Amino acid sequence: MSLFPQSFENLIDAFASLPGIGRKSAQRLAFHMLSVPEESANAFAEAITNARKRVHTCPNCQNLTEEELCPVCSSPRRDGSVICVVAEPRDVVSIERSREYSGLYHVLHGVLSPVNRVGPDDLKITELVTRVAKGEIKEVIMATNPDTEGDTTAIYISGLLRPFGVKITRLAYGIPVGSNLEYADDATLMRALEGRVEI
Amino acid sequence: MSLFPQSFENLIDAFASLPGIGRKSAQRLAFHMLSVPEESANAFAEAITNARKRVHTCPNCQNLTEEELCPVCSSPRRDGSVICVVAEPRDVVSIERSREYSGLYHVLHGVLSPVNRVGPDDLKITELVTRVAKGEIKEVIMATNPDTEGDTTAIYISGLLRPFGVKITRLAYGIPVGSNLEYADDATLMRALEGRVEI
Repeated sequence: MSLFPQSFENLIDAFASLPGIGRKSAQRLAFHMLSVPEESANAFAEAITNARKRVHTCPNCQNLTEEELCPVCSSPRRDGSVICVVAEPRDVVSIERSREYSGLYHVLHGVLSPVNRVGPDDLKITELVTRVAKGEIKEVIMATNPDTEGDTTAIYISGLLRPFGVKITRLAYGIPVGSNLEYADDATLMRALEGRVEI
Repeated sequence: MSLFPQSFENLIDAFASLPGIGRKSAQRLAFHMLSVPEESANAFAEAITNARKRVHTCPNCQNLTEEELCPVCSSPRRDGSVICVVAEPRDVVSIERSREYSGLYHVLHGVLSPVNRVGPDDLKITELVTRVAKGEIKEVIMATNPDTEGDTTAIYISGLLRPFGVKITRLAYGIPVGSNLEYADDATLMRALEGRVEI
């Protein structure tokens, strides 16, 4: 005898299939779904189907968008000669928040990772090469995460873009603003010393 | 300029409205929803609407069910003269797992809690009194959680049921099976001594 009704068990299973949500949390979330007003529950379901229906990747930069082109690619105020290459759509949000960058983006949707069986064909690398090959790009900024997989991906892509004669740069490594030298790790301090600048 | 597409922001908002899920986790879950096959995403949405459509409370014991009566109430093998009173539907599942109980249940859907503004009218207490008043019940087992609110609720309900002359019991307090005396808290040890039995 199943103790919860079948459709309720299905709802628990659905929540438990989400990353980072265990069986107990899934049960709690399922109970929550029953306790909210019916409109809220239906709105939740609709939010999922709507997002799946409307959101697609921008054919130019591969960022998420509902329009034909994403807001960055379609803006006349952005500098079309610079591309900032990031791993994920959320990285675009982080960089935009700095208000320092006015060029275009290219979202790879992942990084090279032999362990997770992610190879060059699983990322939007060909699309980036095609954009650069058109000849209008002067600089490509590699802004993948400063870890092994991010660095590897950046170096791999630099190699592919080198023949087109574009300037290839990466974000500066160093100690974070507002942090404390005492707590900086060795690798970061080493990079910060290497990259020291005159004042 | 909103940086994620609107329908994607809506999906993040929906996840962030769930208890225990912050903004960062909500964003991660929303990305996950976009990365799974479209059928899985739609199945998730459907699980929510289906559970809301089909699941209701059993008119007899107030447990969740999809049928007219819940499986326990409609089973001819259950002892109809005993009611075990629990706070939540998940408590029914816990007690059923012990395979020790063969009577009926009554789910209160909460406990009395002045702090959270939960009074007697917010719980399924009247429904319990009505069941007991019919005269077929011989024993009511109070199985609310052994904490202040659970105990208060049990004592309050006992007072209401006393006039009907039914036997009212509660679960035994004591040291958990397989545990270690060294780690038992004082209140539990005190209750275990009070409730000692001859061997």
